[in-house]
Amino acid sequence: MQKKIILTGDRPTGPLHLGHFVGSLQNRVKLQNSGNYEQNILIADMQALTDHFDQPEKISENIYEVTMDYLAVGIDPKLSTICLQSELTALPELTMYFLNLLTLNQVERNPTVKEEIKQKDFANKIPVGFLVYPVSQAADITAFGADLVPVGADQVPMIEDTNYLVRKFNATYKTEVLKECEALVPENFSRLVGLDGKAKMSKSLGNAIYLKDDADTLFKKVKQMYTDPNHLKVEDPGQVEGNVVFTYLDAFDDNKEEVAKLKEHYQRGGLGDMKLKKYLFEVMDNKFKGIRERRQELSQDRGYIKSVISEGTAKARDLSNDFMKKIKAAMGLSFS
Amino acid sequence: MQKKIILTGDRPTGPLHLGHFVGSLQNRVKLQNSGNYEQNILIADMQALTDHFDQPEKISENIYEVTMDYLAVGIDPKLSTICLQSELTALPELTMYFLNLLTLNQVERNPTVKEEIKQKDFANKIPVGFLVYPVSQAADITAFGADLVPVGADQVPMIEDTNYLVRKFNATYKTEVLKECEALVPENFSRLVGLDGKAKMSKSLGNAIYLKDDADTLFKKVKQMYTDPNHLKVEDPGQVEGNVVFTYLDAFDDNKEEVAKLKEHYQRGGLGDMKLKKYLFEVMDNKFKGIRERRQELSQDRGYIKSVISEGTAKARDLSNDFMKKIKAAMGLSFS
Repeated sequence: MQKKIILTGDRPTGPLHLGHFVGSLQNRVKLQNSGNYEQNILIADMQALTDHFDQPEKISENIYEVTMDYLAVGIDPKLSTICLQSELTALPELTMYFLNLLTLNQVERNPTVKEEIKQKDFANKIPVGFLVYPVSQAADITAFGADLVPVGADQVPMIEDTNYLVRKFNATYKTEVLKECEALVPENFSRLVGLDGKAKMSKSLGNAIYLKDDADTLFKKVKQMYTDPNHLKVEDPGQVEGNVVFTYLDAFDDNKEEVAKLKEHYQRGGLGDMKLKKYLFEVMDNKFKGIRERRQELSQDRGYIKSVISEGTAKARDLSNDFMKKIKAAMGLSFS
Repeated sequence: MQKKIILTGDRPTGPLHLGHFVGSLQNRVKLQNSGNYEQNILIADMQALTDHFDQPEKISENIYEVTMDYLAVGIDPKLSTICLQSELTALPELTMYFLNLLTLNQVERNPTVKEEIKQKDFANKIPVGFLVYPVSQAADITAFGADLVPVGADQVPMIEDTNYLVRKFNATYKTEVLKECEALVPENFSRLVGLDGKAKMSKSLGNAIYLKDDADTLFKKVKQMYTDPNHLKVEDPGQVEGNVVFTYLDAFDDNKEEVAKLKEHYQRGGLGDMKLKKYLFEVMDNKFKGIRERRQELSQDRGYIKSVISEGTAKARDLSNDFMKKIKAAMGLSFS
């Protein structure tokens, strides 16, 4: 039986943080190690340029950062294909054919794009590249022949849009060459809140802990965490809900019994924030020390990182070019 | 001294007609034979799909038709590079980078696109691919490093838009890798009117004479030509302005003295339309017989036509891929 194909990936706009770890990286390692899938991890540098077109050096450098994060958390380039979007010409090629199948109205109606346009305050200056990035994303997914796309629950509409395009393409060209994909939403999916507890962890909000952060930085960030603003004295009863320290303990401490005890103690009163934060720091330091150390080692060998990307990209290039040939033949554009 | 690079081409939506011959093909043969230029002739099949997305077989077949027309009129594949757009992945690639540099407002303001949208009656259903085709055209021109683009006077704004993008790209990425191009507008440029005299010759208006038309078809079409509707009897004085037969005589009869005499006779009265049309037929048949016969021969050897396109495309692919590498390096996307 053929293994199901997964496409996943990241925009290389910065090193990866614990939000990525909780929301996707952990899951990728699990999917990889199950041996049941062909997992492709796309470093989406072209897509990153759609709203960072004037910062290509930043994107370029973060290709390495992101790859080091992948390897450090346990992505094995022998088991998963790590590849670079801008080196895969089948992707812009398929994007151009897809653009013929969508009207401007349809593209403008995309809720994710609408929301992001509002957030990014583009006003009337929306770059066309940004407007059409979901189309390029659909091309990524289909050019890899992906069966499964791991996403958060909020990204399911994106998968539906991709499948709409697939059906439209297949109907237009009377073919079945493209296949619909399924969203793979992890059980109990939730986004990790940031240090400030107010929103999801994000580089741009400045509330992130990075996989590369050293112990000192980690400790500083844990100390900054939002707890219970009414928990003024150690003996006061404290609140657990919305308390970032407990959220992180739930996420990272495998000793669930100890976490339950701490919650109870905190609610009763008598457990100070600093003591609690020191405990969390120990838990997190233990959990991420190995990753951080591997990452530190990897950063000494840029040539190796480059070779990982090159080899994965070569593999993905062959795969996507072969498939693009089939797609064009199915369209009736079978010149070669 | 390096030869200047020309990019020109056609959308393969049908065989070429005398409007193409007068407006561009003749000129291409002249430019080619001057030995002063590197001429690239792009068969723009991807662009043709932007408003014919549901007719790829038609586009596919017309790639051969158009190439036979090129060869028949004297384009020599050893001197000019005939190449196929959909086989050159640098073109969609560069298009995607360009799309980041333009806002939706800018793309929608393009006067040619605006006009064509009106003509094609897309209403609110403009395919995004069609909306952005001028961007893809700019990518074609720049990816070939074209210095000169032969266009009609009405297409000069398109060249200005391309140069706007070139300046924007170079300024954004602090480079000079892209160069501005110049419109090459032929002296005394005019569009050949159709048989009906009402508009330019065009396949969709059904008023065209094709290079492939045989003598019988040519004769039939000449007989249909619009003359002077008030010239009812042979002895009546007739009008020369707006009389398609005279327009074509001006375009195709090298014996200018004879044309002057005929005009004088027609205006004076005593020269019948049928006699005049028979004369025009002889002139045109003489002029296009050789082309038609070469084209007939070429149509017997599809393998040769295919090899012409393949070889030209391979050459153009190397050239555009090499240049795309330089472009990406200049952007700071120098992974490979």
